[in-house]
Amino acid sequence: MSEQRKLTSQSEDFSAWYLEAIQRAELMDYAPVRGCIVFRPEGYELWERIQAGLDARFKATGHRNAYFPMLIPESFMQKEKDHIEGFNPELPWVTEAGGEKLEERLALRPTSETIIGHMYSKWIQSYRDLPVLLNQWANVFRWEKRTLPFLRTSEFLWQEGHTAHADESEARAESMRMLDIYAEFAEREMAIPMVRGQKTPSERFAGAVDSYSIEGMMKDGKALQAGTSHYLGQNFARGFDIKFLDRDNQLKLVHTTSWGVSTRLIGALVMVHGDEKGVALPPRLAPTQVIMIPIGPPKLRERVMEKFDVVFAALRQANVRVRSDVSEATPGFKFNEWEMRGVPLRLELGPRDVESNHCVLVRRDTGEKITANLDTIAERVKTMLEDIQGNMYTRALAFRLAHSHRHVNTLAELHRHIAEKEAAGALAGWVLAGWCGDDACEAKIKEEVKFTSRNIPFDPPAKKSHCITCGAQAAFTLWLAKAY
Amino acid sequence: MSEQRKLTSQSEDFSAWYLEAIQRAELMDYAPVRGCIVFRPEGYELWERIQAGLDARFKATGHRNAYFPMLIPESFMQKEKDHIEGFNPELPWVTEAGGEKLEERLALRPTSETIIGHMYSKWIQSYRDLPVLLNQWANVFRWEKRTLPFLRTSEFLWQEGHTAHADESEARAESMRMLDIYAEFAEREMAIPMVRGQKTPSERFAGAVDSYSIEGMMKDGKALQAGTSHYLGQNFARGFDIKFLDRDNQLKLVHTTSWGVSTRLIGALVMVHGDEKGVALPPRLAPTQVIMIPIGPPKLRERVMEKFDVVFAALRQANVRVRSDVSEATPGFKFNEWEMRGVPLRLELGPRDVESNHCVLVRRDTGEKITANLDTIAERVKTMLEDIQGNMYTRALAFRLAHSHRHVNTLAELHRHIAEKEAAGALAGWVLAGWCGDDACEAKIKEEVKFTSRNIPFDPPAKKSHCITCGAQAAFTLWLAKAY
Repeated sequence: MSEQRKLTSQSEDFSAWYLEAIQRAELMDYAPVRGCIVFRPEGYELWERIQAGLDARFKATGHRNAYFPMLIPESFMQKEKDHIEGFNPELPWVTEAGGEKLEERLALRPTSETIIGHMYSKWIQSYRDLPVLLNQWANVFRWEKRTLPFLRTSEFLWQEGHTAHADESEARAESMRMLDIYAEFAEREMAIPMVRGQKTPSERFAGAVDSYSIEGMMKDGKALQAGTSHYLGQNFARGFDIKFLDRDNQLKLVHTTSWGVSTRLIGALVMVHGDEKGVALPPRLAPTQVIMIPIGPPKLRERVMEKFDVVFAALRQANVRVRSDVSEATPGFKFNEWEMRGVPLRLELGPRDVESNHCVLVRRDTGEKITANLDTIAERVKTMLEDIQGNMYTRALAFRLAHSHRHVNTLAELHRHIAEKEAAGALAGWVLAGWCGDDACEAKIKEEVKFTSRNIPFDPPAKKSHCITCGAQAAFTLWLAKAY
Repeated sequence: MSEQRKLTSQSEDFSAWYLEAIQRAELMDYAPVRGCIVFRPEGYELWERIQAGLDARFKATGHRNAYFPMLIPESFMQKEKDHIEGFNPELPWVTEAGGEKLEERLALRPTSETIIGHMYSKWIQSYRDLPVLLNQWANVFRWEKRTLPFLRTSEFLWQEGHTAHADESEARAESMRMLDIYAEFAEREMAIPMVRGQKTPSERFAGAVDSYSIEGMMKDGKALQAGTSHYLGQNFARGFDIKFLDRDNQLKLVHTTSWGVSTRLIGALVMVHGDEKGVALPPRLAPTQVIMIPIGPPKLRERVMEKFDVVFAALRQANVRVRSDVSEATPGFKFNEWEMRGVPLRLELGPRDVESNHCVLVRRDTGEKITANLDTIAERVKTMLEDIQGNMYTRALAFRLAHSHRHVNTLAELHRHIAEKEAAGALAGWVLAGWCGDDACEAKIKEEVKFTSRNIPFDPPAKKSHCITCGAQAAFTLWLAKAY
């Protein structure tokens, strides 16, 4: 905490701002391994809170956790052909172990459908064994060319749910239920509004029949796919021979699903809520909700500290995650430091406050200063934290709505939209578009303007009538955006 | 749950019993990767409870969690020479990734001192940055020749604490504090009495100055090292240049510690408490604490079920982890099944019980049947679960004491002790021995009788005066045993 430079401005260079903000807030550090990062305690605690919130929701819907081996034999990866095609270019391989060359290469898991499919084929015999509802918290590997902390790293942490069902409708209901859980969690706990929708075939998970996603808008107007849920049909059941004897005495293939979110959610938190002062964390997930700072001249410090400790204890008692900064630094330095780290609320206490039995609360989200009576401080703080949480969500939603455009009907108009926004120094944001359903039309958009189809939203704000590329009748309405 | 065979007897073949018991209780299954297992939900939930219990204790003593990359460059492993010598034979290596041959091989971490040491050298500059108290929950790899589910597998799950301190005494106090936390947790939550002590140099962690362990006695009389804590001195600080500017303005090397427990604790639970009926779980860790089973003829089932549901709800309400088995199987089948899975308490409810407002409780630890009044059932069950927990601990302690021997003074006597026990079909157990401190004397014991030094206990039941091997004056008193 010794130096205190200003961050690069978001509007000047969002990417530089992001990299500075996450390092200065000590969420992460670069690791001496290509494309890997270290999750420092401030960043890891965000993940722990995300884990706790999701894990409780998974368990409440009947899922249990398990753990499968990280190393996957090459022959397993090969069994579902779209799967290996999709993941092969990104796999790291173990080829030697215990001083010997291995007979078969072992992949570091990019996801676990194959090894879990193999086990399911052993465990599932009868309709009585279904459904199987498992989840795994694990590290996974994707050796990608361009990496970005939290959003795309060679190793990352995630959860992957894998379920098996007797029929299609139950499996489809499961993949939808989990997508809803992701959206509800992201909105309620992370204060990030999400668009739920279906992926187009070109953006589908390798091996899925249908993929669904939740997408959030970052402060630079780009989209971030924050979670996915897949109906895998019988593809993996076929590849791994997962069959069961049904009530009607017929041997049938199960229907499977998989769904996951990862540590990229930490990046989403920063990119949605962060501002020129640095990281800003929603109260429900913030490791520290309130930072208490004593102010006033050192000679009056003793009297202040007496009351300070009482207030600190009262907040602790009320289960507020409170921390105090009684270091030698100036109050101004501390204010900047804790704002940069994203603590939602600051409590200042000085000699005059003690006399009047008040303190000053400063909101990270609005900068507003509020004088609060110390007798009811815990309740006041808790109410305010809830208010900050709500306000952060509302603001993120307003931002997304303000940068979501539905007036674009043709590729030419999309070119114009982007050029106009660029000229005005504004964000191009998301664009609602009609699509005929032809892969080539979708590919052309990407090729020309680097916008990709995010998803086909379940609740589009409008239905577009014609394909943005070819002008034929639209079968679907898509969100288009640049994406992480 | 379709077949119900008897397990191999513990006394006949302990190892066969163990492998059958853990599979039948669905704690694990073999994976199609050499030496790897799948942690099934019943097994993984034990690990989740162990994690929760330890994590709360780590946090209460000021530690925070972080996550470091799993892949460690070969050059890092080389920096501490004892470390690489100790771990090199067991490492799996990634040599290809993303379709290319890597310039430097990357090891799958066997432990993380090296990569964490590297990061600490960046983060630690001044005495103000100390102590650094971090922990990591992670998967680790050791490609061992002979594997055994939970106890020794190619991949396993663990936590590894890594701390850095300004001076030796603080670091030594830390390594002792964490050993105590392990012992307290194992005794209180797992109901396994532990012997705390210091490892001899030959059994030390590769790179440590001093290693400490907790050791428990399994039901076959063997010892299991259940947790270790290491004072690493300045070895890793030197290898990774972890220096700080002290208050006296001198640049100094930090002192580090590391400490860990792993999923082998699940194996310990089974080997300490299991019996001829199968797995037996201590109530504090058991995923299911009470299994409720309705009994009596089907035609009277409806009246029973009404009360059954009331009792079930009352137990749930009281935070008892209760589960019911209302399947078609016979009560006898169910009794065996749930005993085999280790559920601490069974609650039976039949038509006569309903009439008399009672039920029958059956303890897994003693087989005792108790008639209990339904009006106070939740309290009664909770008290009984605590009693079972206490009894399991006491019994494990009595077992260890009964198989701990202190009459052996020479290697010849040790040979005789082992032969006598073998002839009587009894366990050789643990043997207290004097040791002069010479590595050769220790090695000779192992060579001759395959007993190894477990640790130099902090509180030996007696002090031995002469070295068991050479007869010279003993500098230390050791526990000797066969070990996992």
